[in-house]
Amino acid sequence: MKGTKKRILCGGIDVGGTKIASALFTKDGKMTGREKVPIEKGSAEKPARQIIRIIHKLAAEARKKNGEIKAIGICIPGVVFQKSGLVWAPNISGWDHFPLRGRLREKTNIPIILDSDRSAYVLGEQWCGVAQGKKDVVFLAVGTGIGAGILAGGRLIRGSEDIAGAVGWFALNPYFKPEYAEMGCFEAEASGASLGRKARHLLKAGAPSAMKKLSKGNLENITAETVVNAARAGDRLACYLIDSTASYLAMGIANIVSILNPDMVVLGGGLFQAGELFLKPIKEEFKKWAQPLAAKKVKIELSSLGENTGLYGAGKLAWNNLEAG
Amino acid sequence: MKGTKKRILCGGIDVGGTKIASALFTKDGKMTGREKVPIEKGSAEKPARQIIRIIHKLAAEARKKNGEIKAIGICIPGVVFQKSGLVWAPNISGWDHFPLRGRLREKTNIPIILDSDRSAYVLGEQWCGVAQGKKDVVFLAVGTGIGAGILAGGRLIRGSEDIAGAVGWFALNPYFKPEYAEMGCFEAEASGASLGRKARHLLKAGAPSAMKKLSKGNLENITAETVVNAARAGDRLACYLIDSTASYLAMGIANIVSILNPDMVVLGGGLFQAGELFLKPIKEEFKKWAQPLAAKKVKIELSSLGENTGLYGAGKLAWNNLEAG
Repeated sequence: MKGTKKRILCGGIDVGGTKIASALFTKDGKMTGREKVPIEKGSAEKPARQIIRIIHKLAAEARKKNGEIKAIGICIPGVVFQKSGLVWAPNISGWDHFPLRGRLREKTNIPIILDSDRSAYVLGEQWCGVAQGKKDVVFLAVGTGIGAGILAGGRLIRGSEDIAGAVGWFALNPYFKPEYAEMGCFEAEASGASLGRKARHLLKAGAPSAMKKLSKGNLENITAETVVNAARAGDRLACYLIDSTASYLAMGIANIVSILNPDMVVLGGGLFQAGELFLKPIKEEFKKWAQPLAAKKVKIELSSLGENTGLYGAGKLAWNNLEAG
Repeated sequence: MKGTKKRILCGGIDVGGTKIASALFTKDGKMTGREKVPIEKGSAEKPARQIIRIIHKLAAEARKKNGEIKAIGICIPGVVFQKSGLVWAPNISGWDHFPLRGRLREKTNIPIILDSDRSAYVLGEQWCGVAQGKKDVVFLAVGTGIGAGILAGGRLIRGSEDIAGAVGWFALNPYFKPEYAEMGCFEAEASGASLGRKARHLLKAGAPSAMKKLSKGNLENITAETVVNAARAGDRLACYLIDSTASYLAMGIANIVSILNPDMVVLGGGLFQAGELFLKPIKEEFKKWAQPLAAKKVKIELSSLGENTGLYGAGKLAWNNLEAG
């Protein structure tokens, strides 16, 4: 119709291990129509079909707002092989070199941009979060695992096989332990899952701690959250475990700072929901290790977008693609 | 003159701590007119004036070949602050935030591009050396110190303060030693200078070794070269020191591989003149630490351009600038 100009919008979809979040984004990062639903599991195709339905819903939502979706960014909890459009996500059954981009393109003409969740995290924080306007930013995600999203000179660093940022494999201790072979030294020493595992290990060996009571008779109930709560209550073993984790986090962050010289390192992921326990010791200790000028200049901040970080990043993936033509 | 078209050339100048090398380069990386002279020291201005004379000489050389220099790349043994054109080079007296780019631009109209030697190393190997055609390459220079030049997605990574690649500061051992504060953990454990220092330390403590004889009565004569020679002759202490250095090199290389997922890591610098002693243990051990897929895909190679690596890189800096317009 003459005289009616449609608003240009982009879609963002954050596919997690258990939920899928989606929303529309304006060019300046305003989010509307956010929804979050449990992921449909059971086969590789099920979540792919679910994403198609979400895309159609986003398109309908955009039309209601007299808008039109020009691109959709989707982040996944794993690796996106950019040349082939195949994806690998260990928590989504069947997504082992699954042709997600191909599946989606069969069913929609809207340009689809896929990337890893960690790339989305760093983009999200740079677009609308704590790292706005910065060009050299690293998002360090510490939860079950450890990984990093990297912006250098304003560009995402993906590496030759799209697996850059695998910092959970940082070697930080020359005395190799068997668990390093499974998940990497940094992840074995400092992830949320490792914090729980270390606590269970010490409690099983008889270490005295109030955490034993908190386990309600089953040490398998001990998680990172148990340790965090016990540390807040002053339990010495829990405090020791937090300190030890923070020391390794400081070393890992120092290594990121020395090699990449970023403006900012943003800390996110489950473990940093207890950010106040970790931030102070990390800030004190990483300076001991990192290149001194780089350490002086870098800012270390907690993620400011919370559970929406990936969603914002997915929206930004779409906008970046649109603007690059 | 009608009918005579001048050949387009670029100049490369590699400023080292003791020598300055220079040459002309064609677009396809052919080097001509290479010269190498001792650097003139005594003030910050002396080497700057010397570089001006070298630029005039390169221009005259180009004219003799019916050519014209369109840009000159210069690499220095330190940091180039790209916004200001100031340089910092600890081995050149007075080059502490010295306005080198300004000084050169006062005296020549040829566009001048400055960068660090480690950036030049990685560009040189990518242009004419062992990493030709690769987009994600890291050059690890191990000599007196340890530093890295980084290409990611085909672009130089400089960081927010132009000091990216300071991997000598990698934290690789949680048990902090005093020397880490001076030079960084990785450099303290694995540089050429540290190899000599460790040998002297153990010999002073009375460790039995043929190196004692090689010192000719003064343990200060023991350098990395002494250790390398003794190891080649089978001296056990020297072999132990080489193994220990190689183990730390493997950890540092693993960290580079995990975070950047490069196609190739090129090893250069003084220590790798004894590359055959280090390459095999490094290749075996880094896989123990690095992200497994990234470790499987990456190639680890010795620098193929030898002492001309920086010079080629300087030439490429100029050509890249020319081609970017």
